[in-house]
Amino acid sequence: MIEESLLLEAMNKAADAAAKETLSRFRSGTAITNKLASSIENAAQGAFDPVTEADQEAETAIRAVIMSLFPDHGILGEEAGHHQSDAPWQWIIDPIDGTRAFISGLPVWGTLIGLYCKGAPYAGMLDQPFTGERFLGYPRADGQKISQLHRESCQPRTLQTRQTDTLSDAILMTTSPRIFNAKDKARYDRLEAHVKLPRYGCDCYAYAMVAAGQVDLVVESGLNSYDIAALIPLIENAGGIVTSWSGGDASQGGDILAAANPTIHAAAMAVLGY
Amino acid sequence: MIEESLLLEAMNKAADAAAKETLSRFRSGTAITNKLASSIENAAQGAFDPVTEADQEAETAIRAVIMSLFPDHGILGEEAGHHQSDAPWQWIIDPIDGTRAFISGLPVWGTLIGLYCKGAPYAGMLDQPFTGERFLGYPRADGQKISQLHRESCQPRTLQTRQTDTLSDAILMTTSPRIFNAKDKARYDRLEAHVKLPRYGCDCYAYAMVAAGQVDLVVESGLNSYDIAALIPLIENAGGIVTSWSGGDASQGGDILAAANPTIHAAAMAVLGY
Repeated sequence: MIEESLLLEAMNKAADAAAKETLSRFRSGTAITNKLASSIENAAQGAFDPVTEADQEAETAIRAVIMSLFPDHGILGEEAGHHQSDAPWQWIIDPIDGTRAFISGLPVWGTLIGLYCKGAPYAGMLDQPFTGERFLGYPRADGQKISQLHRESCQPRTLQTRQTDTLSDAILMTTSPRIFNAKDKARYDRLEAHVKLPRYGCDCYAYAMVAAGQVDLVVESGLNSYDIAALIPLIENAGGIVTSWSGGDASQGGDILAAANPTIHAAAMAVLGY
Repeated sequence: MIEESLLLEAMNKAADAAAKETLSRFRSGTAITNKLASSIENAAQGAFDPVTEADQEAETAIRAVIMSLFPDHGILGEEAGHHQSDAPWQWIIDPIDGTRAFISGLPVWGTLIGLYCKGAPYAGMLDQPFTGERFLGYPRADGQKISQLHRESCQPRTLQTRQTDTLSDAILMTTSPRIFNAKDKARYDRLEAHVKLPRYGCDCYAYAMVAAGQVDLVVESGLNSYDIAALIPLIENAGGIVTSWSGGDASQGGDILAAANPTIHAAAMAVLGY
């Protein structure tokens, strides 16, 4: 266990430090345009992955907060790789999840800060500084696992997932139907045909909407551990479930099925072909 | 001409009144779920069009503000139809553009309030009360046409579109590639293959991002006049251009091509097949 107040101090300080770097560059015009230009080669290879100054500076800021408060913990970040990879406590961070949304000016990117203990998800945060939303999943001092939404001067709100139990009532999200390979696309399309409302375009924010009781399913593939680490406690502490498409461990990324509850999770997995 | 301060008073009061109705019901849980249930029949016909309490109450509130300030103006709204349709000044409103986003908890819906004079777009507003953003396009007292972003305690920011001049540098948005019929889909896909970054999922918010200089193109079809009326002055006053796919008048809806500047507009139109 990490003392609750120390955990929240670390996450809040890290998110505040990251927000200074990201918000000042969000919708800032030329800086982003230049970064975009540097990504044209990746785009030509079908792997558009803009790495902005904001991304790098925010990761540096988050690492500094964590290393000062927890010098013996490990850190894995999208930008700067692994630090102390054999430590039992590992922070897994993505300073800007949803760089395409960031570049397009859309407030659905997020700063992801996850914490694993001996490989198991322990706590996680999604911070969206433009909307002022901070989604947090963590264990309280009494052992109770909770998910909360903190927003500026508002009281923290406890998050709970929806109880939708049939696919024909479900809202399904994915970043884009273009992210799948041919085999996975066929499976995804089958699932999409069963749901009431499919919705594209939100990266990490879609997972926060599962935790918040707005969306029932998120289906993606090809994720890295830092794309999902922070989101697992956020969803599971709110009553949801996050696995691979075949029901396996999601903590290392790969293909991901996040669901509002075990019933809709099983229904989605059945249609995906497992 | 309408006096600038009176125009802004009307738009701001109308948006404030609408926000009271929409924000209190955004992410409110059961109310939305029930509204969603009532839309299942539409969904079965492939036309998912949830009409929420928020939509109806917000339109009533907007109409009340306009009718008190401009009793001889006409009003066309998505929910309650036409009032005084033969008046030269016509307000064209969509209380919640992006009801699917609203239902899914995503802050990319908007309240659209447009004003036409003798059929020509005169002024327009997109209000996003959750993020606190109010996008406005209108003529100033000196005749200058401007677009601005107002946000809470911040100074208004003048908006300007991007100068992107080739499709291979362009960011393209559409609500979903599923909105097109087969013939239009083939044209859309051809355009999508030419751009650097296609992005799905934002309804009216995508058009605001064109005005704000973040996105280069929005391509959609099957829009109603109230889906686009408020957005034309917003984009055109910022340097952009909004037409049908073939370059014709966009003010009555239909298929829409919104572009950051005339060069990228012509390039997109050529690939769409006109």
